[in-house]
This record gives sequence, structure tokens and C-alpha cells, in this order.
Amino acid sequence: MANRLPRVRERLQDFDADAALLSALPNVRWACGFTGSNGLLLVGKSNAVFVTDGRYTEQARQEVDGAEVVIAENGLLTRLADLDYFDDLRRVVFQADHVTVARFDQLKDHLSQITWIPKTAAVTDLVASKEENEVERIRHAQQVTESVFDHILEHLEPGVPERDIAAEITYQHLRRGADKMSFDPIVASGPNGALPHARPTDRTLQSGDLVVIDMGGICDGYASDMTRTVAIGSPSEASKNGYQAVREAQERALEVARAGLTGKELDAVARDVLEKVGLDEYFSHGLGHGVGLEVHEWPRISRTVDHELPEGACVTIEPGVYVPDDGYGVRIEDIVVLREDTCENLTRAPKELQIL
Amino acid sequence: MANRLPRVRERLQDFDADAALLSALPNVRWACGFTGSNGLLLVGKSNAVFVTDGRYTEQARQEVDGAEVVIAENGLLTRLADLDYFDDLRRVVFQADHVTVARFDQLKDHLSQITWIPKTAAVTDLVASKEENEVERIRHAQQVTESVFDHILEHLEPGVPERDIAAEITYQHLRRGADKMSFDPIVASGPNGALPHARPTDRTLQSGDLVVIDMGGICDGYASDMTRTVAIGSPSEASKNGYQAVREAQERALEVARAGLTGKELDAVARDVLEKVGLDEYFSHGLGHGVGLEVHEWPRISRTVDHELPEGACVTIEPGVYVPDDGYGVRIEDIVVLREDTCENLTRAPKELQIL
Repeated sequence: MANRLPRVRERLQDFDADAALLSALPNVRWACGFTGSNGLLLVGKSNAVFVTDGRYTEQARQEVDGAEVVIAENGLLTRLADLDYFDDLRRVVFQADHVTVARFDQLKDHLSQITWIPKTAAVTDLVASKEENEVERIRHAQQVTESVFDHILEHLEPGVPERDIAAEITYQHLRRGADKMSFDPIVASGPNGALPHARPTDRTLQSGDLVVIDMGGICDGYASDMTRTVAIGSPSEASKNGYQAVREAQERALEVARAGLTGKELDAVARDVLEKVGLDEYFSHGLGHGVGLEVHEWPRISRTVDHELPEGACVTIEPGVYVPDDGYGVRIEDIVVLREDTCENLTRAPKELQIL
Repeated sequence: MANRLPRVRERLQDFDADAALLSALPNVRWACGFTGSNGLLLVGKSNAVFVTDGRYTEQARQEVDGAEVVIAENGLLTRLADLDYFDDLRRVVFQADHVTVARFDQLKDHLSQITWIPKTAAVTDLVASKEENEVERIRHAQQVTESVFDHILEHLEPGVPERDIAAEITYQHLRRGADKMSFDPIVASGPNGALPHARPTDRTLQSGDLVVIDMGGICDGYASDMTRTVAIGSPSEASKNGYQAVREAQERALEVARAGLTGKELDAVARDVLEKVGLDEYFSHGLGHGVGLEVHEWPRISRTVDHELPEGACVTIEPGVYVPDDGYGVRIEDIVVLREDTCENLTRAPKELQIL
């Protein structure tokens, strides 16, 4: 159960709006607690209405907090438009980065008396700053993933295909109570590790490989996200050096991470460490991203982010290098909560290079 | 590799357009073969261009057939707008049921000289009629799912939680080469079976339960989708009768299914069987849906579908009843290909009620 409608209402004045229509399901869940796959939430200044379909009659009544539940027989918009609730509304904000052009046309047709105000990121910053009960859920999801990692270590040996390890990672998350995966696991061995978004293949682990394992599960709605890189047998000098550089880059970033830094400033701390050893050109993505009800949320932490990172945001810190010429990749990723003067790491899995 | 650009081009004349911009990734894949997670395909009358980001440079060159590959440094739309390719275009169709309002604003900003034509379902009917090589992939995916079902039968016994069976279903799909699941598996036992879209819970199977198992995996891009309902120990008379009614409803529908029927006509065949035994009120969803690169595609087969079903469409036939008062649910689901005078069933798993 969640009732964050007051936080949405505070926003209405900024938008000069009478109401906000939330359609992106993770935002709907955040605002009113509904966990199903179909629903619209209209938040007015003093009341709110949630529309879903007949599959979710009972579930919506149990879950939705702070809004009247209405069941639609034929399409949520049709039902919404029938409510006399709209008689008093003039200006309504909608999520322009979620509603399609076709759906917006329906909105305008059904509710032509409304002035629709398109907003991107309408509640993004509100969602980013986590309450402690949300931090606890992310911490729990991260613990599940760490437990899976411990289990997986026993399966990592020469001859095992990447695909089988990925299957085991998924299975062990589900067996430990995850509802689903945050994303399809990445198991990238040897030269495949040099692709930042490799998909698991039939390649078998070989002695001398570094193996990048990036995974997370959704527990009670909240995502985990963790990457560790391990060695199968003796790694090359180049890949050992790459590992130590990434580890140091992450440590420096973790030491300084706090709310109030810009994304660019924090990204630079890690990037500078890699630059000193000539590996910055292989760090081809940003340092991190927000995590919550979605595994990739605002804010991003990268070279192009000029705004300050908000207090309470749960973000990944995940430097990596991808070196095709030396046939390896390394990434190390934790989730931290940004506090006023520091950050709190929700990840405990060790980071010395494990040689299996 | 796929090159279906000629089929998109045939459509341009109907739209009175110079080009079509495909943004929905399953449609992009269908048209040009690209399997990654970020890309835009612009199909003109005599040429085509595909834009993706730097992660996919190599992959796009290997996969994309019939279009020039362009790599974007900072956003696909920005890069697309820079191409002098647009100088000769006036009217361009876009996928209004996929492009968000915010993204459409960017399109208009970046390419203000273009008249943008919103179309919903721009290539939906083309995608629906499958080529034989696509049918073969769906058949293969369905075979993987049937093999998983055989395996799962050995795990179904009193005391096993629904969640563990769902985890096993996922694991066995991945071990058999599925890239991911078509959707999160449904394992709904006893009274949970009376919820058409139940999620697996901690409830353990009990003697006398019917168990609804709905699952599918994505193999080589194409989805499977199959439901079977089995009994744990002796089922009640009511649930046995429900099972036989659903089975007969499905058999009647399979006997008559063919291209050229309307969705409504085919749906009615199954619904009439259930009506004769007073169970039609518990058949609370449509009879089926298209399956392909997405697990839920056009066409739908339901009471409200007045158009004819196209030849070559792969569709599910899945009657079900959900009877809370008697504490059970039944659904039986196959995938068939609609042919001119008949249908071909891609599913072989047996349908007599298995009592485990």
C-alpha cells in the first residue's frame, strides 16, 4: 500500500493544473499502490480516481490507497470520460513521455472540454527521492541478488556455457522470491566481456577469462542491480590491471558520492582514475542510473548531466572498461543511497578479484 | 536476416506517403532483421535507412538487410534529421500507437519541413500474415514449451508451491535455448485458477486441485504460448465437467478455424458450447490472439471483432472458465496457423485431463 497522492498534489500548483493524469504504471504504483498491468490514476486537488478493468476489481480494492476505484467495462478512457468528476476540471497535466499520439487523440476526443498540458518527467524527481521503506525494499532485493551471486560462484568453471549460468541466475532469483528479473542477466566471458551489453551466448567459460555478471531481480516491486567480474583461472596482466583500475575508479566514486553533486562531477571522479592509466577511452557509458520501481530511473550519472543529484536517490555506481584488443571487459556495480554528506552502500558483495 | 521492406513500400501508396518511419522494435525487426533494443527504420520508395547507437555498430551491420546503417552519437532523432535523405521527402507516416507525444514533438522540431501522418496499426496486418519460415520458428518455440511441460508434469504434486513450479518453467525454457519468456508463467492452483490472470503465489498444490499452467518462451525471436490444466488427485465433479466443456469448446473451435471467418464468428463457436452447459458467463475473455515476434499481436478473436481473420495468421485458441464459487478454473490453449479452408495446429501436447 502506498499513498503518495499528497506529493503529486503539491506539484499541481507548479503546473498551474487542476489535476494530473498518471498513466505510466510504475508511477501509478508509486502514487497509489496498484500493482496490476492496466490502470489510470487521475489526481485532483482534493480527490482522486483510479480506473482499471474487471480483472483487477478485487486487487484494486485491496491495493489502491487514497483514490476511488472505478472498474471499466470497455476501455479505461471511455469510462474515465463518463465520470462527472471532470465537470470541475479545466487544466489537466498528462505524461507526454508515456502517452502515445494515438492515445492522446482519444483523450482529446473523449474529454474535449479539458485543456491538456503535456509534461515530460511530471513526477520523476518525486519518484527519485526514496522513502526509507523504499530503500529497505531495494536493500532486500540487492541481498537476494548477492545470495544468488554466492550460489553462482560454485557454477563458474571452464566448460560451462554463458547461457546456462544466465538460466541459473534467473532460476535462483525466482526461487528466492523475486517476482521477475530486473532485466535479462548478462554473463559475458572473455572477449564477449568487451561488449557492454552482451547477451549470454553458447560460449563456454575458458581458463584465463574474465566473466562479467550483471543481474538483478524485482522483489516486492523494487529492483536490484549488481555487477561483479570474476576470473576463471589466471587472468592476463592486462585484464588484471583493467580490473584494479575499475575497482579503484569505483572506490573513489563511492568515497565522494553524495546528494548535491552534479551527475557530471561524480562521473568525472571515476573517469579521472581510468584516465590516469589510459583506460578512459574504454569506459563507454555513464557511471550510473537511478533504481527503484524501475531498474533504470532518473537521475543518470554521466558526462552530460549538469543538474544536482537529489537526496534519497538510489543510484548505481558502475564504472567499466571494454577492451576488444585485449579481449576482456570489467564492470563493478553497487547500488548506493545518496545522503546529504555521504552515500550508503546497499551492496556488500566483496570486490577483490576472485580467481576461480 | 529479414528484408520485408518491399512489403512496407507497397503500403506507402495507400498512405499517400513518401516514406514510413518504423519505431516499434518488433516491427523494425520484422522489416529489416535488427534484433537490438534501440533503432529507427525509415523506409522510402526506393531506399531505406536504419539508425541505431554505438553499442550496436557491429550487430546492425550483420543483421540489417536492405537499409543503410547509420550510427548516432547523440540521439537517434538528431542523427536522422541530419541526413540529407530527408530533402526529397514531404509526407512521412509514423506509428501513432507507438510514438509518444513528447517524441512526436521532437520529430516535428527536428524535421519541421515534413508533413507527419499519424497511423495506428501501420503494418499490423502485414506482420500478422506469417511466412512459412516464421511459422516454423513459432512451431519450434511451441515444441520447446511442450518439452518443458513434459518435464514439469513430474514436479506437480501436493505440497509444491506455485512459485517453485513457475521458477522451474522459466529455468527449463532458458536451458532449452529460449532467449527469454514470452510472459511470466501463470501457475494457478485450486481457487487461484478462478483468476484468469493469476500470478504464482506461495500456495502449495493440494489434492483435488485443478492447476492452470500458461507459459511460453521466445526462441529466435518468436513466441510460444500454451496453456494446459491438470488435476492433482481426484478433481470435483464440477471441475471435471468444467474441464470437459472447455475441451469440447476448444475442439469445436479448432474444427472450424480458418482464414476468412470473423473474430466474432470463431469466438461464438466456442462460446456456444459453453453456453449449452451454462458456463458461458465464466468465459470472461476472448477466444484468442495473434502470436509472432510479440506474444500478443493483432488479430484478436473475440465477441467485438467484426473483421475477417487473415490467412497465415498464427493465433491462439484458448477458451477458459473461471468459477470462483466452485473454486476452480480451466483453460486450454493451442496455437494454430489459419489457412484458406482450415487451420494447422502447431501444438501437440495431449488434452485429456491428466490426473497426477
